Amino acid sequence: METNLSPEQQRDLQAFGKRLAVIRKSRGWSQEKLALESGLARSYLGGVERGQRNIAVLNILKLARTLECDPGAFFQT
Amino acid sequence: METNLSPEQQRDLQAFGKRLAVIRKSRGWSQEKLALESGLARSYLGGVERGQRNIAVLNILKLARTLECDPGAFFQT
Repeated sequence: METNLSPEQQRDLQAFGKRLAVIRKSRGWSQEKLALESGLARSYLGGVERGQRNIAVLNILKLARTLECDPGAFFQT
Repeated sequence: METNLSPEQQRDLQAFGKRLAVIRKSRGWSQEKLALESGLARSYLGGVERGQRNIAVLNILKLARTLECDPGAFFQT
């Protein structure tokens, strides 16, 4: 969990998480399926999607490769 | 510093760092200037550019806004 975040930072992480969830669901994948395919824990992915985790480059790339999308898609508004 | 990285992970972080350096230099900015403008430490930025730091979403967004570029540009090959 990330603590002591400003409202803007919370919004930024929530926006990232929402885009991840949209892309995951567009594949028809559950969080459990994405966890199994990516090797990341389901509870961690849930935290990312809720904007409670400040995910870093290596895990961003892991998710993008697993979902076969551009990493930039997680940042697009 | 990141430790125990696989060769692929090292390459991924180095590629990210190189793209950051290219974008920074295209603005004619030194690391010192980017540090001053972004509020991130110059030593940290140096580590990111050398692929020694696994930078996370909030700092990626800070750099993209400072450099007025798309965050996805740091990931493009």
